[in-house]
Amino acid sequence: MEFYIPTKIYHENCAVLNHSTEIASLGRKAFIVTGKSSAVKTGALNDVIKALEDNDTGYILYDKIEENPSVETIMEAADIGREGGADFVIGIGGGSPMDSAKAIALMVQNRDTAEEVLYQELKIKALPVVEVPTTCGTGSEVTPYAILTRNDKKTKQSIKHNVYPSVACIDAAYLKCAPVSVIRNTAIDALGHLIESYFNKNATEYTHMLCQYGLRTWAKNRTVLYDGKGFTDDNYNQLLFASTLAGMAISHTKTSIPHGLSYYMTYNKNIPHGKAVGMFLPGYLLLMQKNFDQGYNDFIADMGFKDLEEFKIFIRHCFGEYIITDKDAIKMVQEMLANPQKLSSVPYKISEKELQEIIEYAR
Amino acid sequence: MEFYIPTKIYHENCAVLNHSTEIASLGRKAFIVTGKSSAVKTGALNDVIKALEDNDTGYILYDKIEENPSVETIMEAADIGREGGADFVIGIGGGSPMDSAKAIALMVQNRDTAEEVLYQELKIKALPVVEVPTTCGTGSEVTPYAILTRNDKKTKQSIKHNVYPSVACIDAAYLKCAPVSVIRNTAIDALGHLIESYFNKNATEYTHMLCQYGLRTWAKNRTVLYDGKGFTDDNYNQLLFASTLAGMAISHTKTSIPHGLSYYMTYNKNIPHGKAVGMFLPGYLLLMQKNFDQGYNDFIADMGFKDLEEFKIFIRHCFGEYIITDKDAIKMVQEMLANPQKLSSVPYKISEKELQEIIEYAR
Repeated sequence: MEFYIPTKIYHENCAVLNHSTEIASLGRKAFIVTGKSSAVKTGALNDVIKALEDNDTGYILYDKIEENPSVETIMEAADIGREGGADFVIGIGGGSPMDSAKAIALMVQNRDTAEEVLYQELKIKALPVVEVPTTCGTGSEVTPYAILTRNDKKTKQSIKHNVYPSVACIDAAYLKCAPVSVIRNTAIDALGHLIESYFNKNATEYTHMLCQYGLRTWAKNRTVLYDGKGFTDDNYNQLLFASTLAGMAISHTKTSIPHGLSYYMTYNKNIPHGKAVGMFLPGYLLLMQKNFDQGYNDFIADMGFKDLEEFKIFIRHCFGEYIITDKDAIKMVQEMLANPQKLSSVPYKISEKELQEIIEYAR
Repeated sequence: MEFYIPTKIYHENCAVLNHSTEIASLGRKAFIVTGKSSAVKTGALNDVIKALEDNDTGYILYDKIEENPSVETIMEAADIGREGGADFVIGIGGGSPMDSAKAIALMVQNRDTAEEVLYQELKIKALPVVEVPTTCGTGSEVTPYAILTRNDKKTKQSIKHNVYPSVACIDAAYLKCAPVSVIRNTAIDALGHLIESYFNKNATEYTHMLCQYGLRTWAKNRTVLYDGKGFTDDNYNQLLFASTLAGMAISHTKTSIPHGLSYYMTYNKNIPHGKAVGMFLPGYLLLMQKNFDQGYNDFIADMGFKDLEEFKIFIRHCFGEYIITDKDAIKMVQEMLANPQKLSSVPYKISEKELQEIIEYAR
């Protein structure tokens, strides 16, 4: 078994300002990558700019990362970063800006390459990356992954390169102004990472430890997530911590079926990532129940639910209604069967019928 | 809170040979650092040499590291490594060669510096280090620490620099020919790391996770450790895994009183490190019992003992008789009171009387 998480993680109040010297030491000019609003609203962008200015470090701001960022956006941003002379990248936001930061760090560093490189098996280096999460789900601050929208393939897909962030600054203050829907979506994305990593062919004692502790930490927040209110600093810190542990776990195991199925729903039905993952989690657990007696029971207990039915009700309550048509179901199974990487994460050989069952349980 | 473990850890059968290309990629000429016999007996040295030769990488062998290596030995080895043109270091063995590898990597890289540099607060770099443990206690394969014997100060002390190994190759096969006394000593050293890290001022949720999982893994081996026989591959793997987790934990918290006290007993009474630590563990737990009700009870249960008395009997059984004279007790308290770093790891302000109690409980 392997363990490799080279990122320096700071999880504390004022993490960015407390470690400004270290952040600024990564280069002379930062390329700051954000979405359209949350980096400003949360105060995270302000903190990052202050950290850089305090250390006389220049920066370029790129604030046009869309949700589920496309390869085209990455290439546009990389052009700007390259022309501006950026020598390190700071991603601020949820998974979209943080994943983008990694892909941009690759494309700025390898200036003479075309976008195809992102999905080719090559050994190329990236600029150093700092990540500042403002949601509690993706774990992107510690994973080497960057999931981009590929319009050429009409889906989302992780790039072929591992870009581990150098530094992650995690501060619960940035979660405070997030809408409940974002907290729920992202917290359930993190739960998805824990579930898919726990029941995974690549699971090890290391990932088991991360999933078990992450799940127990996550479970403390079940009630506030259900109620959609009453979040304290402790809740925000626990959800962020669970999300980072989950990120460490999938860094080793990769995700599995629910993530694989979610990409279709997000690309074609515009359903937010966490919700698109969450809808398939009960079905994945249903399958695991049939195959992993003891492991399954321990897992459900750690998750803080009485049984699968209660978890299904929780998911429905958090996400409300959604529609999966017969056509969607057929297409998703086809897409899934053509995705050997996600299939190979399942701890046993999953059949087409079982894929259909997972989707059926979500309808 | 922080988390930082940049070492790439491979824990598997044939770890060295499986990852020979990666090991060899760290330089052109390796400086292999071992003790006098175990690297040969275990087969680890053979594997390392084969890994290098398979990749046309040169090496110099230095096999004169003594137990509790001195600064003088480090300087002698560094001279040889420097003259031979080594550009990375491989430590094979228990804590002594693995810690030495880190200190040598510093002194070869910084060729114009004297030994004083080891204990000065300076920013200096080290050559890349690979660690191959042949015991199950030190955790040195993942810690940044190197504890050396300082004859000038008549004790052992960690150098002032953090040298994180680049790669750790952990293979249970190397434990198979270790004497029971070495397995016990080192397993109890790892237990010391778990105890001292759990009850520690610098403890975080990350170290709590590592200690809890490490302790439960360690506890599965209580019976074979007590019996001193019947060790299976599973036992060796679990003890190595617990030891690595414990190393990750102290990398963040540092060790505390039992380690601090042990240095005197090792330097002056020639007592092996694990035994010298182990004799003070019951006394440290006695103090924690008074101060941390719930945390203490959970901890003892995870450790697999009914109560402190049972643990004390276990320690006595594993180590047999030893003598701590009145003079030793007085000297140890004096040395401890002059060690602000170890004192500051205790989760509350410990008194001179309490230090005496820990020692008294060991007699």
